[in-house]
Amino acid sequence: MTNLTEMGKKAEAAKLLLQKLSADEKNRGLKKAAEALVQNTNKILDENKKDTDNAINHGMNEGLLDRLRLNPERIQAMAEGLMQIAKLPECIGEVMEEFERPNGLKIRKIRVPLGVIGIIYEARPNVTADAFGLCFKTGNAVILKGGSDALYSNLAIVEVIRDALADCGFPQDAIQLIADTDRQVTIEFMKLKQYVDVLIPRGSAGLIQSVVDNSTIPVIETGTGNCHIYVDKAADLDMAAKIVYNAKTQRIGVCNACESLVIHSAVRERFLPKLAEILAPKNVELRGDERVQEILTDCIPATEEDYGREYLDYILSLKTVDSTEEAIAHINKYNTGHSECIVTEDEETAVKFLNETDAACVYWNASTRFTDGFEFGFGAEIGISTQKLHARGPMGLKELTSYKYTIYGNGQIRG
Amino acid sequence: MTNLTEMGKKAEAAKLLLQKLSADEKNRGLKKAAEALVQNTNKILDENKKDTDNAINHGMNEGLLDRLRLNPERIQAMAEGLMQIAKLPECIGEVMEEFERPNGLKIRKIRVPLGVIGIIYEARPNVTADAFGLCFKTGNAVILKGGSDALYSNLAIVEVIRDALADCGFPQDAIQLIADTDRQVTIEFMKLKQYVDVLIPRGSAGLIQSVVDNSTIPVIETGTGNCHIYVDKAADLDMAAKIVYNAKTQRIGVCNACESLVIHSAVRERFLPKLAEILAPKNVELRGDERVQEILTDCIPATEEDYGREYLDYILSLKTVDSTEEAIAHINKYNTGHSECIVTEDEETAVKFLNETDAACVYWNASTRFTDGFEFGFGAEIGISTQKLHARGPMGLKELTSYKYTIYGNGQIRG
Repeated sequence: MTNLTEMGKKAEAAKLLLQKLSADEKNRGLKKAAEALVQNTNKILDENKKDTDNAINHGMNEGLLDRLRLNPERIQAMAEGLMQIAKLPECIGEVMEEFERPNGLKIRKIRVPLGVIGIIYEARPNVTADAFGLCFKTGNAVILKGGSDALYSNLAIVEVIRDALADCGFPQDAIQLIADTDRQVTIEFMKLKQYVDVLIPRGSAGLIQSVVDNSTIPVIETGTGNCHIYVDKAADLDMAAKIVYNAKTQRIGVCNACESLVIHSAVRERFLPKLAEILAPKNVELRGDERVQEILTDCIPATEEDYGREYLDYILSLKTVDSTEEAIAHINKYNTGHSECIVTEDEETAVKFLNETDAACVYWNASTRFTDGFEFGFGAEIGISTQKLHARGPMGLKELTSYKYTIYGNGQIRG
Repeated sequence: MTNLTEMGKKAEAAKLLLQKLSADEKNRGLKKAAEALVQNTNKILDENKKDTDNAINHGMNEGLLDRLRLNPERIQAMAEGLMQIAKLPECIGEVMEEFERPNGLKIRKIRVPLGVIGIIYEARPNVTADAFGLCFKTGNAVILKGGSDALYSNLAIVEVIRDALADCGFPQDAIQLIADTDRQVTIEFMKLKQYVDVLIPRGSAGLIQSVVDNSTIPVIETGTGNCHIYVDKAADLDMAAKIVYNAKTQRIGVCNACESLVIHSAVRERFLPKLAEILAPKNVELRGDERVQEILTDCIPATEEDYGREYLDYILSLKTVDSTEEAIAHINKYNTGHSECIVTEDEETAVKFLNETDAACVYWNASTRFTDGFEFGFGAEIGISTQKLHARGPMGLKELTSYKYTIYGNGQIRG
């Protein structure tokens, strides 16, 4: 039985040491961990085979199995990910603001680590190395709870990284793994508020909901994306078709894929046949309202439930509107606050949409697929926040930090 | 029975309208509300009398009764508070960052309202107007759940403000009050995640704990302060005595008051008698460890529990240490992440303390009583955050905002 309190205490001790490491020291730790992963490729693959064998025996589907399976190239990619993080600029210690008060107090707002970060995720062993890299770079200790199906893989990866940290003289407890497959332990982990400063769930909507319902630790919700593209009456329809094609089909299982098309009634006759044609080679199932069905006669009727769904599949819901206001209202009703797009050549309409659509990322004439820490130039990504507190949209290194005020006086007291 | 879903829907509708109001419009609403509060002084006082009469009948203590009781001056002060908020600079719409990607995408990070803010607080009617002012200025709709003992006062204040908003043609549902004293309704409110973006509890440690335990809405914890002052061996002892006196006694019931003194053993013989002398007129009860008791023979022994307590009273715990490291470790073990102070003339020691003490505000040679939005120059304060997510320390207007990314393309798709 995992002793979570003990793990919390170890993380707390590690966090205090991590906060003192210099940028160079942290980068040395990341490089050492990267080298160690490559050097221990065979060991990691052996353990990964235990997981994949178990998964096959339990009938795991091919999509999930693909995410679980490692090979030398994927381990190399994990190592390269850590090397990339090492190259990113240091942000801890940055003086974010500095001001002086009339009474002579000097106040500095300084960027500091969050402290201890908890990450709950599914059976994707690459997340283990990746999450460590981002947390370590920002001076945070991390406690990981990965999917049970990846337990042997995760244990191996974490052991390799911990050994690498020890070789550098850095605290091994910068990374800890909850090696327990009991669901009750995960629920208890969500209540380890005394030691964990923030909990980030990465995975399905169900996983995230469970964390939101059970956690007493502050949570950052990530990654549920019911993303819309609104094709305005003033849209360049060729551009619109290419953007929808890209956002819907370039990668279907991702949170920034387009799940729903909103179309202005004035262009439905011209646009919908064009859309059906461009999507046909990908066999995208279309589910539309009556006015869509009038044009695309073999379109499946969309239900109310369709408009609220993140398909993560070759399915697209379609909704006809008579104005931009109606489009915005529809999107604000059904979206998950992730990424939304308007295609239009009319600036006034675009500005209205950009201002009034309530989402982390709102696009004008570009694919929703760009909502990504790397595409935004952050050089890293721990997830896409769909909440408004703390961080919104792609989260890079700075989003894994907090701040503190240091105040310099010469005996000031309050009158 | 309160229909929380209905209230949530109304807040959501109001939030969309509020986001479109200009700075001038919002300031006009604040001024109108301020005038209306003063004009309706008699009405508010009549309702407040119902609350105070009930409270007296139920035996409420004088401290709480004082916080509940209104008079013309206090209503005037509420109005002035709103006028002050109207004068603060607008922050919504601020372009926080702007950058262009190699593919030509232009990305803007823009400050936006959080959306709908929930505030749960105790029987202090002035918080009702104050919270409205801060939320309205930042374009947020607010749903208030005040202490049941202030129900009539809060109903009156909220009605006056709603009428003032209607006079301006602004959405009345910018402010709503849960007029239900059933505890179960409050618990349900904490789960109104579909409509409420953030929940801020203001009040006792017990209230805050209940919110943390029950809420599925992201919470900002505020205001529990077990604040320490560390008197180093290199301290100016006269300055230290004045700072401790100020932080302990200037106002005892506040979260930034000093609750615990940590003293370097090398100066305890010189400092403790001086401290006892300066605190004597205030009858501050001292609870110390054995080495404190050796010097102050009538000092009460401190228990482990004492070091973890926020007394909010004329009581001070005292702990002797032999080094700055030990002082920092003691504070990091027992503090609530609020405000901590070192008194020393030694810069190296001070910098170590400022860096390694884990709290929102860390002071060098100044009273912890300055942890306050007004003292920091923010011009307003909704509370002092003791968590690391989103906001830390005094929260002003900017801390009631989020951001969104707007992305400008010309047909970019992801390859």
